[in-house]
Amino acid sequence: MQEQLEYQEGRTEISHMGKVALIERLTADMEQRNASTVMGVGDDCAVIEGSPLTLVNTQTLVEGVNFDMMYTPLKHLGYKAVAVALSNIAAMNGTPHQVLVSVAVSNRYSVEALDELYAGVRLCCERYDVDLVGGETGTSRAGMVITVTAIGGVEPGKITYRHGAGLHDLVCCSGDLGSAYAGLLVLEREKVTYQANPDFQPDLAGYDYVLERFLKPEPRLDIVKLLAEKGVVPTSMIDISKGLADSVLHLCRASRCGCEVYEEHLPIDYQTSRVCSEMSKNMLPVSCALNGGEDYELLFTVSQKDYDKIKDLQEIHIIGHVTEEGMPAVMVTPQNTTITLRAQAFQGVDE
Amino acid sequence: MQEQLEYQEGRTEISHMGKVALIERLTADMEQRNASTVMGVGDDCAVIEGSPLTLVNTQTLVEGVNFDMMYTPLKHLGYKAVAVALSNIAAMNGTPHQVLVSVAVSNRYSVEALDELYAGVRLCCERYDVDLVGGETGTSRAGMVITVTAIGGVEPGKITYRHGAGLHDLVCCSGDLGSAYAGLLVLEREKVTYQANPDFQPDLAGYDYVLERFLKPEPRLDIVKLLAEKGVVPTSMIDISKGLADSVLHLCRASRCGCEVYEEHLPIDYQTSRVCSEMSKNMLPVSCALNGGEDYELLFTVSQKDYDKIKDLQEIHIIGHVTEEGMPAVMVTPQNTTITLRAQAFQGVDE
Repeated sequence: MQEQLEYQEGRTEISHMGKVALIERLTADMEQRNASTVMGVGDDCAVIEGSPLTLVNTQTLVEGVNFDMMYTPLKHLGYKAVAVALSNIAAMNGTPHQVLVSVAVSNRYSVEALDELYAGVRLCCERYDVDLVGGETGTSRAGMVITVTAIGGVEPGKITYRHGAGLHDLVCCSGDLGSAYAGLLVLEREKVTYQANPDFQPDLAGYDYVLERFLKPEPRLDIVKLLAEKGVVPTSMIDISKGLADSVLHLCRASRCGCEVYEEHLPIDYQTSRVCSEMSKNMLPVSCALNGGEDYELLFTVSQKDYDKIKDLQEIHIIGHVTEEGMPAVMVTPQNTTITLRAQAFQGVDE
Repeated sequence: MQEQLEYQEGRTEISHMGKVALIERLTADMEQRNASTVMGVGDDCAVIEGSPLTLVNTQTLVEGVNFDMMYTPLKHLGYKAVAVALSNIAAMNGTPHQVLVSVAVSNRYSVEALDELYAGVRLCCERYDVDLVGGETGTSRAGMVITVTAIGGVEPGKITYRHGAGLHDLVCCSGDLGSAYAGLLVLEREKVTYQANPDFQPDLAGYDYVLERFLKPEPRLDIVKLLAEKGVVPTSMIDISKGLADSVLHLCRASRCGCEVYEEHLPIDYQTSRVCSEMSKNMLPVSCALNGGEDYELLFTVSQKDYDKIKDLQEIHIIGHVTEEGMPAVMVTPQNTTITLRAQAFQGVDE
């Protein structure tokens, strides 16, 4: 009788293994026994047979890891927890219908605190016409743990996977990139100042856009709708939760292709650039776009033949194109230098 | 900028509010907007339209609250986390098809520890022909948090809710009651001895049944199958996760009825009785059955007309009958004393 955590020999630290490699190791060689299982581990959602297909995903947010109670209003947190799960439905080109929300809290939290959290959950559900259909409240020893399971649907002819990108397809993204990370940088800066001097009143004026991007992200279900209206089915899609580089690499790996994206075409908001210049001369806005997390924008590829249908859409940016299998995923700078993309999401609040 | 956890006035402690009242408060007046939502919060699973109907539920287990690493082998833990979620599918008279498993761990855990955990997850999936279709690994500041989402199906004519029990229906349960709690008592006793003297080698011989009941419970999908074979659709059903009393009260409340169960008909294993007698003369086996948690047996009601179909089934026990709305849920002792049931699940590892 004793904890079985320490192995004398051959202990491998989780930190020495990437998350993707780890989940692949843990789920390797799992046989699918049910005919109804269309897609298992390895995409933004599991896919279950039906017409429409059923999409399911689970997201867990842990206090101190995925959020910091020092600057996260509970209502925003509830909203964000749901939004993040809905973003995974959007990434399959689907429409969310239901969520289950489970919360484990320590006795630091009051019933009124949970009321606030659930006010955010409700707001996000109402905003996206989603039903809260289940969940539970439980106890945690330290901090809050929120798990959201989102369920949605998509017609079989419209589902988009990470795999499916074809040679010469256009690489597109929605919205702008790096702004959520810029918001986090501002909050972390104010937190440090506040901790040094509790009388300090943070002045967050002028940062409202980047703060909202971090604290209250929106799943891009409007993009799913817009693409449907324009008659465009992306050839592949993923959401951008850990920076553009990470998502591009996932897409290329699943689709067995390379990719070129153009630095000058990356959409970056002026507030993001301003925050970067305030932080340090070494903090480049493009780094926030590539490696800052939590934008929850969509990255997708479309066939060249759909170019005319998307070229004038304000919220969609054509940032590159798909290259052959065996080619790397790269960013081309305005000086025509080629930088190989690496997944090196910043270690922010989100690990 | 500061944590919004403490309200100067009107702070209500979560511990002062029952879990049921809390989740009802948090989800009150939620309008269902999606036609596909058949059943939202308030039963063992959410129910989503289709033929078969889709069943979904989420279960979170938190280290130090729902399990103690001191005596929980990781493989058993992985098995149990899945089993608990599948038990909720069984409680709707359904068949599970898929699970998503998310794990958040601190750096105390190695990759090999997660291998062990997932070996248990796989074993339970294989045992019940369920596909592992998703999930993620994440970071936790303290201890392990496991979330399992189970997805299943049931024909519309066969689904069982907590509501639906009719007057004079027979109240039944599967297996035996209180044995998981007896297993927990043994483990806690050995833990105390071990902590006092780390050279102590616990002797668990002779307790194998109750230990297995606690460490590696089985969802009663065999009962679902058996009832189908016998052509019996229960009028109401729930699983027994927090003691018989808690489940009976849930059933009566949802079905708007009272209930009489007979102490002498409660199925209690001899090992459970033996453990109780070892622990204290005040620890009655019937208390374990009523208030000990984690048996994951099924409690259900069947129409009197189905009596002949179930009366000879070894794994099913007729323990009482449904009484009128307005009547309490009571246990009748062999001395013909009537004891009103109260939900007072023991505070074990499971809160």
